[in-house]
Amino acid sequence: MAELVKTRIAILGASGYTGGELIRLLARHPYVEMVVLTADRHASQSLSQVFPHLGNLDLPVLMKIEEVEWAGLDIDVVFCGLPHGTTQEVVKGLLHSTGHTVVDEVMHEGRDDLVSGLKKNVKVIDLSADFRLEDVDDYAQWYGHEHYAPQLQAEAVYGLTELNRENIRDARLVACPGCYPTVPLLALSPLLSDGMIDPQGIIIDAKSGVTGAGRAAKQAMLFGEVAEGAHPYGLDGHRHTPEMEQELSKAAGESITVSFNPHLLPMNRGILATMYVTLAEGTTANDLRDTLVRRYDDEPFVRVTEEGIGPSTRDVRGSNQCLLGVFEDRLPGRAIVIGAIDNLVKGSSGQAVQNMNIMLGFPEFLSLEQEPLFP
Amino acid sequence: MAELVKTRIAILGASGYTGGELIRLLARHPYVEMVVLTADRHASQSLSQVFPHLGNLDLPVLMKIEEVEWAGLDIDVVFCGLPHGTTQEVVKGLLHSTGHTVVDEVMHEGRDDLVSGLKKNVKVIDLSADFRLEDVDDYAQWYGHEHYAPQLQAEAVYGLTELNRENIRDARLVACPGCYPTVPLLALSPLLSDGMIDPQGIIIDAKSGVTGAGRAAKQAMLFGEVAEGAHPYGLDGHRHTPEMEQELSKAAGESITVSFNPHLLPMNRGILATMYVTLAEGTTANDLRDTLVRRYDDEPFVRVTEEGIGPSTRDVRGSNQCLLGVFEDRLPGRAIVIGAIDNLVKGSSGQAVQNMNIMLGFPEFLSLEQEPLFP
Amino acid sequence: MAELVKTRIAILGASGYTGGELIRLLARHPYVEMVVLTADRHASQSLSQVFPHLGNLDLPVLMKIEEVEWAGLDIDVVFCGLPHGTTQEVVKGLLHSTGHTVVDEVMHEGRDDLVSGLKKNVKVIDLSADFRLEDVDDYAQWYGHEHYAPQLQAEAVYGLTELNRENIRDARLVACPGCYPTVPLLALSPLLSDGMIDPQGIIIDAKSGVTGAGRAAKQAMLFGEVAEGAHPYGLDGHRHTPEMEQELSKAAGESITVSFNPHLLPMNRGILATMYVTLAEGTTANDLRDTLVRRYDDEPFVRVTEEGIGPSTRDVRGSNQCLLGVFEDRLPGRAIVIGAIDNLVKGSSGQAVQNMNIMLGFPEFLSLEQEPLFP
Amino acid sequence: MAELVKTRIAILGASGYTGGELIRLLARHPYVEMVVLTADRHASQSLSQVFPHLGNLDLPVLMKIEEVEWAGLDIDVVFCGLPHGTTQEVVKGLLHSTGHTVVDEVMHEGRDDLVSGLKKNVKVIDLSADFRLEDVDDYAQWYGHEHYAPQLQAEAVYGLTELNRENIRDARLVACPGCYPTVPLLALSPLLSDGMIDPQGIIIDAKSGVTGAGRAAKQAMLFGEVAEGAHPYGLDGHRHTPEMEQELSKAAGESITVSFNPHLLPMNRGILATMYVTLAEGTTANDLRDTLVRRYDDEPFVRVTEEGIGPSTRDVRGSNQCLLGVFEDRLPGRAIVIGAIDNLVKGSSGQAVQNMNIMLGFPEFLSLEQEPLFP
Repeated sequence: MAELVKTRIAILGASGYTGGELIRLLARHPYVEMVVLTADRHASQSLSQVFPHLGNLDLPVLMKIEEVEWAGLDIDVVFCGLPHGTTQEVVKGLLHSTGHTVVDEVMHEGRDDLVSGLKKNVKVIDLSADFRLEDVDDYAQWYGHEHYAPQLQAEAVYGLTELNRENIRDARLVACPGCYPTVPLLALSPLLSDGMIDPQGIIIDAKSGVTGAGRAAKQAMLFGEVAEGAHPYGLDGHRHTPEMEQELSKAAGESITVSFNPHLLPMNRGILATMYVTLAEGTTANDLRDTLVRRYDDEPFVRVTEEGIGPSTRDVRGSNQCLLGVFEDRLPGRAIVIGAIDNLVKGSSGQAVQNMNIMLGFPEFLSLEQEPLFP
Repeated sequence: MAELVKTRIAILGASGYTGGELIRLLARHPYVEMVVLTADRHASQSLSQVFPHLGNLDLPVLMKIEEVEWAGLDIDVVFCGLPHGTTQEVVKGLLHSTGHTVVDEVMHEGRDDLVSGLKKNVKVIDLSADFRLEDVDDYAQWYGHEHYAPQLQAEAVYGLTELNRENIRDARLVACPGCYPTVPLLALSPLLSDGMIDPQGIIIDAKSGVTGAGRAAKQAMLFGEVAEGAHPYGLDGHRHTPEMEQELSKAAGESITVSFNPHLLPMNRGILATMYVTLAEGTTANDLRDTLVRRYDDEPFVRVTEEGIGPSTRDVRGSNQCLLGVFEDRLPGRAIVIGAIDNLVKGSSGQAVQNMNIMLGFPEFLSLEQEPLFP
Repeated sequence: MAELVKTRIAILGASGYTGGELIRLLARHPYVEMVVLTADRHASQSLSQVFPHLGNLDLPVLMKIEEVEWAGLDIDVVFCGLPHGTTQEVVKGLLHSTGHTVVDEVMHEGRDDLVSGLKKNVKVIDLSADFRLEDVDDYAQWYGHEHYAPQLQAEAVYGLTELNRENIRDARLVACPGCYPTVPLLALSPLLSDGMIDPQGIIIDAKSGVTGAGRAAKQAMLFGEVAEGAHPYGLDGHRHTPEMEQELSKAAGESITVSFNPHLLPMNRGILATMYVTLAEGTTANDLRDTLVRRYDDEPFVRVTEEGIGPSTRDVRGSNQCLLGVFEDRLPGRAIVIGAIDNLVKGSSGQAVQNMNIMLGFPEFLSLEQEPLFP
Repeated sequence: MAELVKTRIAILGASGYTGGELIRLLARHPYVEMVVLTADRHASQSLSQVFPHLGNLDLPVLMKIEEVEWAGLDIDVVFCGLPHGTTQEVVKGLLHSTGHTVVDEVMHEGRDDLVSGLKKNVKVIDLSADFRLEDVDDYAQWYGHEHYAPQLQAEAVYGLTELNRENIRDARLVACPGCYPTVPLLALSPLLSDGMIDPQGIIIDAKSGVTGAGRAAKQAMLFGEVAEGAHPYGLDGHRHTPEMEQELSKAAGESITVSFNPHLLPMNRGILATMYVTLAEGTTANDLRDTLVRRYDDEPFVRVTEEGIGPSTRDVRGSNQCLLGVFEDRLPGRAIVIGAIDNLVKGSSGQAVQNMNIMLGFPEFLSLEQEPLFP
């Protein structure tokens, strides 16, 4: 019997929280193997030094990107968990080098060696914000610099799995959503598409654990600063806003502006989004609920909670699940939609793996089956 | 020189978190002494058994209310931290017994002995919800039983200090606000009075630490249930809603309905309220900020944060301070007002002490001077 | 091709934390199905009401034990997560009813119906303390009542997997260790067997998260009591002490008394045990380390950390792993051994599943493969 | 009536957690005023930018040390909360400049201007480790560089208040103890002095909150790394060890080596030390307790808990109190002594203020009176 040939994975930026989470999930995937792990600041360390909890795994030593000898590695899938901005250049190099016609792009300096290390049909799954905004002018405005790979942007597919599955299937470059947009998009897109709510005036009050801020050492993320406190931030405009507006506008068929207001909570994982919406004429909260139940009935990772039960982040911790709930508002003509995810799983690495499964024709739930961890 | 005659205090319900906090604050008050502490389930225990952190204090043993021998105690002020519902009966007994004419009230059984133990001008400061709603029908609807002391309700004064100071000064029965209403009332009342915001459509997304739920053993409040999670609750109508609507309606001069939605966070103390409001025609977020700055300029316990700085619960922990901030909303014509307090201090026991100081003619800040504890 | 006949499982006491954890693990086991879940206080509720995080699973409604209609259920394995004391009676009934000769035991009232519902070779895996102490007098002394099933005690096998695998394989009644004994036994038994440390004078300073105390509502376990604090408890003798002494004495070949001192920490999961030992003449800390490395080299769930790296509970969270480390003590002739587990997994439900796998001839790691969840 | 002339304070290193805590405490001190606050990285920021929780205070803007114009400031007391190593040079400059004869020390470059800004009898209270070790060779060995001010070291007084009050009274340079040594010294010194325990073989298992590690941004102190975990550290020799050994040796009258092993816990404040000791011949745990009760009977900040009650960090949070408890060990001839403090108060800034009060002849408890904050 022929031996299974495993899909060969490279993870660029493996030492952050999303990198660690990717490794945790992929380590139990039956059909893939991780052959390259890069991490600039931790280059030449073993994975167990950076992530002692993964010390049981037999994986390659961490390297700098530029020190990887790609020749002969035969990489099938590249996950990019690099800092915002750098991904555009790296991905441009990766895809150009595999012979695809990216005619107006200059080959990234020093990436020639990638040609022999990546397969022609290499897939890139990006976890950064670099390819999420379709309008490169929007990108420039929100991120403070010109887009470095506008032509690639044109072919990038937005990776909110449940809403974009068919496009993801055939994409070679998938831009996974930010952790914050995932819940509002899953919750509100079907309601907007079906004309159940007013596209204007949507308010999203989001609450997040700390891991969304990454693993870099910042005073604001010290235990002493975060524990025993709750505080708002990003009130002058959080960068996940344009991404939400872009996708919600598509669902609504008109241009949408949202009020998005994140808060930092003393917990490791989890995003809870409380969304305040105006009902369309003649619509009730129960109608919204019915719409969501129908829309996600066949989805393995989205579930509408029973009536009266509020979604809670503790009920999705460590899993790829998204819980949604709908509630009547005391204000007439309005409703409240609430959703919860684990920001590192469905909000990032889990959704990335879900997309990979689709892009490679694997069962979508592979390595994502585990139940949430509570308490 | 004459010795200082201290004001004599009774605390009914001293073993809960608000009771402990009252004791913590009053212990350093130069002009009062605590002579009666009651706690039904912990009767005959010393305070240090119930609250080891207060083990340094030399205070009376805890007793059942009905076992207190009031004769000769000469109580000046009674703080009531009893479960909702029972306060009405107890207070009726207390005040009737001191000879005040509460003609249509039947003397509470077995309270005759109080007559000699309470001064004629005894003051009652209630921390429960029993006297907060002016309309006893509202009370019956939200709390599920008839009001037991409607005539007393008529004379009760709502104890939101900064908004009602003059009435509090002469009251004999003050109903301290719930922990949740305190922030929205401080933040929105001046804006409504001055016509700066639309009275209708106000949305309050509130986040609270666990101590607001009290110290009774409930599974939902176990560390294992709360830590590492965030969840909404009370979505079918939290009992602090009518209280907010009552007071905001007064400020607005018209009947107001609010959307109030609380969330439980994994922290001990603190309430953060994010309030979404519609600006009045021609008004800006900066106008709101200016109004609040002016309104609270002379107040020792309310402060408007610098522009761009979001109030955080960690910055008020353990103190009687309330921080308020105003921010532009991305939605045109709207603004976001955010406030933070320590729910056990300004949201409960601290405000009660502040009211006591006013009622007794003491400097308002006595025993409330300490800075917040951070981290 | 013949369909797989799955092993049929009953879980008695399914609504506590260990019950929930058993379900979480078994839900992904390829060869078992859960057909009975009991929970006295939550009888007739669905699993998703008791454990919303398991809401995706399609499992039986919770029942009272006495309401289970066992006839025809064909149960193969019973997990008991009942309160201490009651397990002895329930298990006596279970095993007697299947026709085994437990001659001197009186059939437990009302268990006749179990006869037809349990297979003759039913296996019982107990997570309580009821069958851990070989000497029933020890049991009576530490637990305050006579042992109700002394003959069954005689055949019970102590379920510390790595140390007792062969006996577990053929047992019909396995008594899984307490959460606290697991680490000291894994760490110290090999050192005692090999004569590397002095059997006398062992000090175990243990630190535990809150879930070890179960899910029952107790004031001491409220978030408000536990968060932001650390405190010792059980200083007058914790009930896990005799169990440790029993097993360590076996390893040492002489009677051992230990100083065991637990501390409660503000975290959900995890036990960290710091063990202070006297080296045998001529032995060094490195010798201890070598002994442990050799002893556990082939074990999938026990790992000795690299030199200088202290085991941490965050590195085993949600997994069945045990990390061990050995360190020189500044005091001459002494060493420090440190171990970490997740108390709900390797310290309870995970070890129970590991034992089940062995008892049923399954690969030992089934449903226990997942990596720890960090952060 | 003459106006009170307040003592003029400079705080060098005001932006760390100990600096913030000093300011919190001194802000309510009736007899002092803070006139200089330095903070290198935060120079020219207002205090409320660095510590929003102190935003109510009217204090000087933060400055770099070298930018302070000392002339005419008339500083009476300098608190040093600088990084280890730099304090020696700074203090040398400070004290030399005031005309004291520090003959063999070279004047620190650029400190001439201090002459006019410090009073002749300026007092220096150092919170760093720079002057704690009497033997400068010990210092060099543990801290990796020669001591820069050996002559000053000779006159420095170790600031464990309760054990060294008389020497502190007349000192001009007090070296406050590290957070970890405070509990073991308070607990064990009287027992060693009285010959109640064996000076050899003492084991100290310490548990600490995160603020002991300071406010500098380090990955290991991120919320994501610390929350939901417990881990040992410093197992190759924590720098607080020689300090403990130095002072315990004095108490015992012989040279002592201790086994000191710290653990990091997920909480902001608090140190819990569990100390394992051998009883002297004929001594019992109760004798130890009696000794401690007698020793600390008159002390305002040290209290022995009631029998059977374990000290807990939650019971001292935010206060200057130290709780001590004594327990029988299951191992014959041994006992367990447990102590708890708030590491930022009694373990650092509170003890520093306590020393200042003594040095200036103020009542010792001034600005330290507040009860612990629980929860």
